[in-house]
Amino acid sequence: MRKLFALLSLILTCQFSYSQTEDSLFIRKIYDEALSRGKSYEDLRSLCKDVGARLSGSAEAEMAVYWGEQKLKSYQFDAVYLQDIEVPHWERGTKESGWIKHTDGRLKKVSITALGGSIGTNGVVEGELVYYTSINELKADKKSDLSGKIVFINQAMDEKEIVTFHAYGGCYSMRNEGAIEASKKGAVAVIIRSIGSSIDYHPHTGGMTYDSEVKKIPAAAISTAESEYIHEKIKTEKLSFILELNCMSYPPKPSHNVIGELKGSLYPNKIITVGGHLDSWDLGEGAHDDGAGIVHSIEALRILKTLGYKPKHTIRVVLFMNEENGNMGGKTYASWVKEKGEEHILAVESDRGGFAPRGFTLDGPDNFLSILQSFATILKPYELHKFEKGYGGVDIGPLKNYYPEIPLIGFVPDSQRYFDFHHAETDVFESVNKRELELGCASIASLLYLMDKSL
Amino acid sequence: MRKLFALLSLILTCQFSYSQTEDSLFIRKIYDEALSRGKSYEDLRSLCKDVGARLSGSAEAEMAVYWGEQKLKSYQFDAVYLQDIEVPHWERGTKESGWIKHTDGRLKKVSITALGGSIGTNGVVEGELVYYTSINELKADKKSDLSGKIVFINQAMDEKEIVTFHAYGGCYSMRNEGAIEASKKGAVAVIIRSIGSSIDYHPHTGGMTYDSEVKKIPAAAISTAESEYIHEKIKTEKLSFILELNCMSYPPKPSHNVIGELKGSLYPNKIITVGGHLDSWDLGEGAHDDGAGIVHSIEALRILKTLGYKPKHTIRVVLFMNEENGNMGGKTYASWVKEKGEEHILAVESDRGGFAPRGFTLDGPDNFLSILQSFATILKPYELHKFEKGYGGVDIGPLKNYYPEIPLIGFVPDSQRYFDFHHAETDVFESVNKRELELGCASIASLLYLMDKSL
Repeated sequence: MRKLFALLSLILTCQFSYSQTEDSLFIRKIYDEALSRGKSYEDLRSLCKDVGARLSGSAEAEMAVYWGEQKLKSYQFDAVYLQDIEVPHWERGTKESGWIKHTDGRLKKVSITALGGSIGTNGVVEGELVYYTSINELKADKKSDLSGKIVFINQAMDEKEIVTFHAYGGCYSMRNEGAIEASKKGAVAVIIRSIGSSIDYHPHTGGMTYDSEVKKIPAAAISTAESEYIHEKIKTEKLSFILELNCMSYPPKPSHNVIGELKGSLYPNKIITVGGHLDSWDLGEGAHDDGAGIVHSIEALRILKTLGYKPKHTIRVVLFMNEENGNMGGKTYASWVKEKGEEHILAVESDRGGFAPRGFTLDGPDNFLSILQSFATILKPYELHKFEKGYGGVDIGPLKNYYPEIPLIGFVPDSQRYFDFHHAETDVFESVNKRELELGCASIASLLYLMDKSL
Repeated sequence: MRKLFALLSLILTCQFSYSQTEDSLFIRKIYDEALSRGKSYEDLRSLCKDVGARLSGSAEAEMAVYWGEQKLKSYQFDAVYLQDIEVPHWERGTKESGWIKHTDGRLKKVSITALGGSIGTNGVVEGELVYYTSINELKADKKSDLSGKIVFINQAMDEKEIVTFHAYGGCYSMRNEGAIEASKKGAVAVIIRSIGSSIDYHPHTGGMTYDSEVKKIPAAAISTAESEYIHEKIKTEKLSFILELNCMSYPPKPSHNVIGELKGSLYPNKIITVGGHLDSWDLGEGAHDDGAGIVHSIEALRILKTLGYKPKHTIRVVLFMNEENGNMGGKTYASWVKEKGEEHILAVESDRGGFAPRGFTLDGPDNFLSILQSFATILKPYELHKFEKGYGGVDIGPLKNYYPEIPLIGFVPDSQRYFDFHHAETDVFESVNKRELELGCASIASLLYLMDKSL
């Protein structure tokens, strides 16, 4: 009996070792392919330069759909198709100017960008600048009558947060709700400090909302450097602000998610989705946000296919449209797969930039965390060390409405530089490092490989 | 007895928890200081812009010594002093030009940089280009007579290496020994492919050596992009190369290491050294290599002092001179501390750039590894995950000659972008991210704090 146990134990150990070795070798091949013969960097260059910034409803967004479909077809995935969706349509317009007016009448032109979804000013708007250090301070101010005035909220990202996304989270409601809160008190416009990590002259745009019960007022962001300028000046003198915006919203437009698949050899109806978002804001080129996620996802499938891997489950890449201002791509995808009666076992998203990989965060059941964490050892040589609970992603988030138990996994690159570029004109191809991008592709391909084998 | 044991156990657990909590809180303060009130970014700007590139023997290197002394004094460390050393003195000169000559006589000017220590060409040198893919291929070539010819070694960094320093290590002998090996076969000059990660037009310099038995020939590096050009062209046609360099060596010059201390409260004669190198190559501004290491080290001490920490052991920051071409700072320091009879218990070096921190590598006794690894949990929130055996540093390396058991620890930031900038004109202040730099300072300060308490 003892001998039999020892023999069985030996066989099991050998099988385990064999499987570990086999996986290690395959993952090494994934990284070799990504780093030596990778297509992601050239694909990102093409998306940024041949297509450009691609806000939902724009011609560029339509070109991005065409680009994505052509790209997936060129890699000969098993199925490539479009999914119809409808997206909001907002345009920045041609006028976007702001000035600080000092007490002595002296003007200072500032770098300004309308927030996405803002109404225009219908001419020039001028008002005394009322200074708040945060959205909460504005909310708490029950006394001030801001009629005819312009609110400025100078809420900086908390530089003490180690992961910059946490600092972003702290500022989000300033951008999202600033116009509502300022308008409630009678203000004629709201200006916010750009949500950016560095002190520079590049304003950062981003989505904002209105409340149907509250009068709409124009909303814009100025650069962090000029926010600091106001912070200093307003200590000793009254300032006014002047702005003109002619951005506006149009009726919704038809658009598409772009989808490609590697068919599952054993369970073709069990789906693993991986994706990023194809749309971007209209400043810069949407290189990190989220061109990187798009090429990460495409390249992950291309690598698995090129290496001859036959997945057990269907691995589906989705290039989601409209994450930035409506998430209609993510919402429509989730309801569509539910309607089709698909079994959805996992979704992975890359939407935190093309930086050096650190790991993955899981939004899903606890028992799934142990599966994710079991990959830590085999992925350690690739500097992946983060395997923990956390956020999945905006695009894949709505799947949870239909599959409450679905594990959603967010790819986590290093976050330190992300908010230097996020939603700003600096988010261009040149801000992405080739090796960092390629390592992201290999990390995601490795995760898909290990998950496909484990599930 | 049982109750007594339980009580003791409780007390010990409480003490341990208290100590853990105390350490956690102090480390959080270290990061807050670095990220909110840090001086490192401005210090680096000043070193890069007010001093500039600072090759040993140059006026800039003298200014760097002055800058370092002033800086350490401004932070009111317990002792600030200079250590006399002697350094090699090589100058690039005013002429540095290279051309590819095609078979049809057409010229193509290339981006070229003399390797540090090379002799000049004494006028224009022209020769047929003989192509090798690696230094080993050149060494193995027993047949070719290269008399009057110019050797080109096109050895690229292995992009499949995850940690780029390993790829650098693979190319190092091409730069270091290329001139010796080419000269042995009669060549009149050697040109190497720049040791850089990206394909661009910025040549990378770096140290090279001669052999007293072998005739000295000029040595230079051309850009990676132009190396790729030669790689393609030479498949179908003979190429010649033309170059002129008027770099030359001068007699050694006096210089200094710059030293500052926080005196140990319990063991003032037990020394922990932390440092980087003050000299740099003469291209760019030596921002990552090793301005980052200099300000990391200074800032680590400043933070500990600012937070009122009284170290048990003396913590000494050393701004080493001449790491790049001679390591006279490191060698002289090691022999000097031995002569003084100091007890040296630990040395830490930062010389891998100012990127997002990943951890530390230990060159030292195995039993010390467990101490280092015991910090992993408390440093996890700061994304530090690398606590393993590895390299210490060039400057602190000679300490081992006198203290064979000394633990040497190298700070490990992410390596992906380092060789885009290393020894090239692109290694300027603007290539360093403020947050990444500051996190490095806090990581090193935290290590010093934990080590000082543990030893």
